[in-house]
Amino acid sequence: MRTLISEIKTKLEQTVKIKGRLISKRELGAISFLKIQDFTGVCQIVTQDKSLISLIEAMHPQSILEVEGKAVLDPKGNPEIHLESINIINAVKETPGIDLQSKEPKEKLETILSHRAISLRHPKYQDIFKVEAAIIQSYREFMTDFGATEFFSPLILASSSEGGAEIFELEYFDSKATLAQSAQLYKQIMVGVYERVFGLSKCFRAENSNTRRHVTEATQLEFEMGFIESIDDILEVETNAIKYILEKVYSKCEKELDRLNARRLMVPDGTFPKLTFDEACKVLNDKFEIDTEGWDDLSTESEKLLCEYARQEFNSDFIFVTNFKKAAFYAYRDEDGMIHNVDLLCKEMEISSGGRRFDSYEDLKMSIVAEGMDPQDFSEYLSIFKFGMPPHGGFGIGFERLVMLITGQDNIRECILFPSDPKRIASQNIR
Amino acid sequence: MRTLISEIKTKLEQTVKIKGRLISKRELGAISFLKIQDFTGVCQIVTQDKSLISLIEAMHPQSILEVEGKAVLDPKGNPEIHLESINIINAVKETPGIDLQSKEPKEKLETILSHRAISLRHPKYQDIFKVEAAIIQSYREFMTDFGATEFFSPLILASSSEGGAEIFELEYFDSKATLAQSAQLYKQIMVGVYERVFGLSKCFRAENSNTRRHVTEATQLEFEMGFIESIDDILEVETNAIKYILEKVYSKCEKELDRLNARRLMVPDGTFPKLTFDEACKVLNDKFEIDTEGWDDLSTESEKLLCEYARQEFNSDFIFVTNFKKAAFYAYRDEDGMIHNVDLLCKEMEISSGGRRFDSYEDLKMSIVAEGMDPQDFSEYLSIFKFGMPPHGGFGIGFERLVMLITGQDNIRECILFPSDPKRIASQNIR
Repeated sequence: MRTLISEIKTKLEQTVKIKGRLISKRELGAISFLKIQDFTGVCQIVTQDKSLISLIEAMHPQSILEVEGKAVLDPKGNPEIHLESINIINAVKETPGIDLQSKEPKEKLETILSHRAISLRHPKYQDIFKVEAAIIQSYREFMTDFGATEFFSPLILASSSEGGAEIFELEYFDSKATLAQSAQLYKQIMVGVYERVFGLSKCFRAENSNTRRHVTEATQLEFEMGFIESIDDILEVETNAIKYILEKVYSKCEKELDRLNARRLMVPDGTFPKLTFDEACKVLNDKFEIDTEGWDDLSTESEKLLCEYARQEFNSDFIFVTNFKKAAFYAYRDEDGMIHNVDLLCKEMEISSGGRRFDSYEDLKMSIVAEGMDPQDFSEYLSIFKFGMPPHGGFGIGFERLVMLITGQDNIRECILFPSDPKRIASQNIR
Repeated sequence: MRTLISEIKTKLEQTVKIKGRLISKRELGAISFLKIQDFTGVCQIVTQDKSLISLIEAMHPQSILEVEGKAVLDPKGNPEIHLESINIINAVKETPGIDLQSKEPKEKLETILSHRAISLRHPKYQDIFKVEAAIIQSYREFMTDFGATEFFSPLILASSSEGGAEIFELEYFDSKATLAQSAQLYKQIMVGVYERVFGLSKCFRAENSNTRRHVTEATQLEFEMGFIESIDDILEVETNAIKYILEKVYSKCEKELDRLNARRLMVPDGTFPKLTFDEACKVLNDKFEIDTEGWDDLSTESEKLLCEYARQEFNSDFIFVTNFKKAAFYAYRDEDGMIHNVDLLCKEMEISSGGRRFDSYEDLKMSIVAEGMDPQDFSEYLSIFKFGMPPHGGFGIGFERLVMLITGQDNIRECILFPSDPKRIASQNIR
């Protein structure tokens, strides 16, 4: 019977059988120490037996082992095993191109990505993607408790969807199709069905952006709800969702985040601070002497400064900016022409956008025409407005960007198992 | 302050404000009855007030309303509202092309799919996709409790991945790419990282199959684990996962499943019954007089008969068939050439396949060559076997097929929000 590493402490003074991967080995005088990992943890194995030590000398790390020995506590109170026998299930005969025993990976990201299948075994990446799994679990928990129903949006779409040029095209039998850029129209359709919905949707952008925060295949934490009074309802839900995630992840993944040296994000009491776009421009003008004349969007540099401002003024790593001057065609505009949209900035970066949407068939149709698009191409989507939509809105959070922020990484490629960008497909170089 | 419909019973004899969608209305003598739905339930609104009744007469179902009135209990003990005032938030002026008030949709599936954004509001589809959300939630719960880590596999892949012709091609900047057919190779890579992993992965198949159970964009409940002793370990985990899902969903979605008339699936004590492929052929021969001479796979008809056999012999709607004569290149073959693979059949249909995989670098490389493929195209995947893989295996369950079986639907398109097949993209006809 296999004993899991997490169970050793319940079997002290007994002989146990451990199965796992050899992480590291070292010798100290006449004693040999091994570290073995299974999915429940890491455990130290000790022996002074000369024949076992000579067996161990011939082994390469990453080998798959089965060891038997007596479970004891080491002087620090951690379970360890006094080795009795060892069985090599799968022997490794060479050393991988990535050093898996360094504290921080020593190789360049380029090299790490081109050996991704192995580099993911480095403790750093084991930690990052454990945190990722905890983030998504917490998000779903929050949304389910909030009464939202999970939905699955389609990824292959007919040629014209949201408009814009940054679309991947696909041969679909005798037709052309495109890959989804977002689940926006679908989550609005689903508000007509369940009122509150959420999903984890892949989105594809054929942008030739080679920055540290752009990839071509990304994931959005989608949310949309009906019967909002104003976009403040959206800001509140988003604040609560992020606070819930942080609280859960900081307690569940404490060890992983400590090993990653991830600074904990600051959140204020109540809803995250917010500025309108005009107020944000004034702050940039007054505090940072930036000329924002004629701006209709924030620059990367100005987003960074606004985050600095939020930390200083509100002890918050998060800040909402609302009422931008330009927006997607479905964004709600009031009688004064004000757009009810919102971005969330965190630590130098936009991590989410959202807002209230049009709920009137006529307004939405006019907006589609004003964008130079054909309402015919949106007939299915438009139909939901003919048949009653409540005032509604929502947000989409860039999942991998959130993982970057929580795990303290600078490049989004560190936070995707097999990232794609203009130079890579599923982490492998194409040029 | 809005009162949710689920909260009405806590506010009896008080005036409450309800916001929701008008589902139906009827008049009985001088009394008018409305049904309003929000995301927490459906509630009846009653009035005898003539001016309110004349207001109601002008309303179309699906309108978005805000009503105020006194919360009371009707004679059956259900909460209802005695109407005091009504406010139309968004008026509907016409009747949709799909009858949303019929018990069963009357329209053909063709019509329902081409009006999908509205037909999803029919109670039948509200129920189906509620059950879907509960299924996925239970699957993730089971897997997390089992110690598996969720992972997210890439969907855009470089040209050659698993081989086979049924691949969608994509323009990727100056290169060609393909859409993922499965997460198989990625989940094996992840076993090298976390030992036990699961995921919900989209897969794309350019098959020109126009059956009731084939679509081109589907979802797999993926699972893979290390340190198995034999494929029986896989059969056990899969049995337990499905039993867990059924138990949770049957209790959480009792009302939805009753309205859908979904017969509860039969599960035996212990692991689902299993037959080897040879034993299955013998059963088909002996019990059903089918000539299976030279077979290397089961026909659709024979799968149906084996399910009948499992019901009769084992009181089980599920039956495993193991050791098929052909398999993917990564399937483990033992020294006798026996393939350690498995399909799960349920109610006439294959809903899952899985098995043990090769864990030896040399064996796997030989198998790739034997299939006429180039090991160079698999170098990243192959590298994990050079650096130690435990004996491992897993399964992938067709998510939408599982939804079909649990909700009692005959066509997989009923169980996908916006299905794609050779004639449709995201539910819209293309030919």
